[in-house]
Amino acid sequence: MASALFDRDLVAIGDLSKKDIGEVLEHASKMLSIVEQGRRVDYLENEIMATLFFEPSTRTRLSFESAMQRLGGGVIGFADAGTTSTKKGESLADTIEVVSSYADVIVIRHSTEGAAREAAEHSKIPVINAGDGVGQHPTQALLDLFTIKKEKGRLDKLRIAMVGDMKNGRTVHSLSEALSLFGNEITFIAPEELQIPDSIYGRLSREYGSAQKSESLEKARDADVIYMTRIQQERFAKPEDYKRFEHSFRIDRKFLEGANNDVIIMHPLPRVMEISPEVDKMKNSVYFKQASYGVPVRMAILDMMLTGKK
Amino acid sequence: MASALFDRDLVAIGDLSKKDIGEVLEHASKMLSIVEQGRRVDYLENEIMATLFFEPSTRTRLSFESAMQRLGGGVIGFADAGTTSTKKGESLADTIEVVSSYADVIVIRHSTEGAAREAAEHSKIPVINAGDGVGQHPTQALLDLFTIKKEKGRLDKLRIAMVGDMKNGRTVHSLSEALSLFGNEITFIAPEELQIPDSIYGRLSREYGSAQKSESLEKARDADVIYMTRIQQERFAKPEDYKRFEHSFRIDRKFLEGANNDVIIMHPLPRVMEISPEVDKMKNSVYFKQASYGVPVRMAILDMMLTGKK
Amino acid sequence: MASALFDRDLVAIGDLSKKDIGEVLEHASKMLSIVEQGRRVDYLENEIMATLFFEPSTRTRLSFESAMQRLGGGVIGFADAGTTSTKKGESLADTIEVVSSYADVIVIRHSTEGAAREAAEHSKIPVINAGDGVGQHPTQALLDLFTIKKEKGRLDKLRIAMVGDMKNGRTVHSLSEALSLFGNEITFIAPEELQIPDSIYGRLSREYGSAQKSESLEKARDADVIYMTRIQQERFAKPEDYKRFEHSFRIDRKFLEGANNDVIIMHPLPRVMEISPEVDKMKNSVYFKQASYGVPVRMAILDMMLTGKK
Repeated sequence: MASALFDRDLVAIGDLSKKDIGEVLEHASKMLSIVEQGRRVDYLENEIMATLFFEPSTRTRLSFESAMQRLGGGVIGFADAGTTSTKKGESLADTIEVVSSYADVIVIRHSTEGAAREAAEHSKIPVINAGDGVGQHPTQALLDLFTIKKEKGRLDKLRIAMVGDMKNGRTVHSLSEALSLFGNEITFIAPEELQIPDSIYGRLSREYGSAQKSESLEKARDADVIYMTRIQQERFAKPEDYKRFEHSFRIDRKFLEGANNDVIIMHPLPRVMEISPEVDKMKNSVYFKQASYGVPVRMAILDMMLTGKK
Repeated sequence: MASALFDRDLVAIGDLSKKDIGEVLEHASKMLSIVEQGRRVDYLENEIMATLFFEPSTRTRLSFESAMQRLGGGVIGFADAGTTSTKKGESLADTIEVVSSYADVIVIRHSTEGAAREAAEHSKIPVINAGDGVGQHPTQALLDLFTIKKEKGRLDKLRIAMVGDMKNGRTVHSLSEALSLFGNEITFIAPEELQIPDSIYGRLSREYGSAQKSESLEKARDADVIYMTRIQQERFAKPEDYKRFEHSFRIDRKFLEGANNDVIIMHPLPRVMEISPEVDKMKNSVYFKQASYGVPVRMAILDMMLTGKK
Repeated sequence: MASALFDRDLVAIGDLSKKDIGEVLEHASKMLSIVEQGRRVDYLENEIMATLFFEPSTRTRLSFESAMQRLGGGVIGFADAGTTSTKKGESLADTIEVVSSYADVIVIRHSTEGAAREAAEHSKIPVINAGDGVGQHPTQALLDLFTIKKEKGRLDKLRIAMVGDMKNGRTVHSLSEALSLFGNEITFIAPEELQIPDSIYGRLSREYGSAQKSESLEKARDADVIYMTRIQQERFAKPEDYKRFEHSFRIDRKFLEGANNDVIIMHPLPRVMEISPEVDKMKNSVYFKQASYGVPVRMAILDMMLTGKK
């Protein structure tokens, strides 16, 4: 029987039901054991993935390519829109139309919100959104959920603090939606100017009744999960505002000594100043493990989308 | 028995006889059925292709890489000369000499006319020209011929209108030569300043007696095949000239209602303004299908060049 | 039994003993016969190599990728730091930490001396230095040794002239160390301002007692091996100094007619002006053969590092 994701697009986390998400995480566990055994398999030996990265990325692109190669599939693509026909004025629709006849699945990253949805509309093959501007990044949300499940043993009834740039962080938008769906208490901790957009906050508190906002990292002390994000200097009009926030939204050893002993610290990476390197060796830090789950989770998604074909 | 292309270079369409072209198109039909079955095969499992793209490309590079991977081969290369030793002052000859010991076939795109021929002279392995400045693009011509054969059922006795930038379009140069060889009537439709070069026009009309020139798209109304190409704004000294031509060399629904009912509209892509998107859904438009044939035609070329080795 | 390199890093040529080097060269001979038979094998079919090229390269990156593909392995990576999270301010340590969970071996090129060592410290998987600023380039040294062994039949008691930029050439630093270890007489021939650093020269003459310096190419006339390197114009304050050296440090037919008849001319490439193209066809020139050995030598290194895993 074909999987819940078979021949579907994955543009926003909301494309998946709670049940679908459960299936992905379960399949990812099986993929993890392949990775841990250091094996490559032939599940997708007949398939080719196109990675269309109109915006730079290390982690997402490399983990997708690693995932596809562990599954025996082929990879084509570009890491930089400068090497493509986009600069000759070609529309995204035309690029997608053509590439969808070269490959069996498209993974797209783009700087414009909505680009992945537009791509999916013009593609003959499944499209995976690997980040579209400030929009969505659903495979990141899935690997975040996988991490929480592995580390905390469950996906519900958790106190979750999301910290940093809640406004521009697409990761936060995808993940908070999924976490609310499973029934968790979320606190968005950010400077006023970078707080979660009203549209998202309103929907979460209306539908799930469990979202709060704060400007103080102190609100994260009792959390089960602290999800840090990068605050980019260029988001601030005045450098001194950035400096101020850089200090008040930073996790270090001292903070953790006053926090919930079992809290896990997550981060979609890259991190800059917001987690002190001294935290890396503490048992609470799980961000590198989280990054490593990018491979099995993306293997699961690719395998579920493509297996059953023909 | 080794194929007509075995261990040969493909630099210009003129490197192939009519019989060679026939063999390529026939082999491409077999490759197409592999693609349509969504399979990858092991025909070239011992081979590695180097894609040396000194100039940007989406379509050509990705379709070559897809073709090689569908045949089980490996791929190395670059999409951007900025990442290579060329900027350290290395000659093309030296780059080719070295790369030809890393791979089994070289696919090269370069901004300079004649670069592919020079590469072939210095290479120990077969070289495929994937576009050299305003020179040649023979694999594009072959996939264009494949498209015409599939859509019109034959390669001769057709009225063919080629429209747009006849001067700088290397695709047009390769294709018009091949079409004349098979016996077709070609009309080059372009603004005076972008008309087909006298050297090419003279040879075609002298050898095949079937070439005409025009400045009006009206001349395309009776054609069996209209081959559109992109007119680049930067080719014009005055913006208003570009604006004028943009309008007069554009295919839309209205034009097609007054044209030969069975005409097919082709385009090597990327397109910008010269074909209205409303044409995409009409039965006459075959440009996306044409692009998709890039994979089976390039599979055929690679397989014919490399199989029989050893 | 696992090889001498199994699960180890290769950051500097000094990481290897004389015996280790012997093992690599011997294994490279076996790999060469696979390459010469035009085969790909499945020795590393379960492994993935990440090529992290923060600095441009043609030869090194493509030959590593060719080597890995000839061994049946997968490849992920980037050719240009501009497409990565480095420009978002990520530390090298974090990038490596993450990538080492996506692959089985990392090949890194970086503009900063010491970067590869730092990478090795943060990696869970073996790291190969593919050039770190003016530091080391150990796989180049190994392929140079392989070339000398193949061409001269031995690795000791040779008179070796290294010519050009001895100061900034990382190739020279790695290779001269290895050659001294085997017992050879080395003469560094360079303009004063580009002569070998005292730190390296002092150690070589102290430990092996066989290093000399000169400013004249005449000193290379009796050599068994002349190892040329590129002198970059940007190293000189005054253009006229560059012009002067360009002429006095150039190998041509005339020079070779007055030199040791059996001398071999090597060069890590890319070359610019320092070897006249007329030398290419002379029996003394081995630089293109040398470049071709990049594949079997890198195959040997990868295979020895990774086979025995699990």
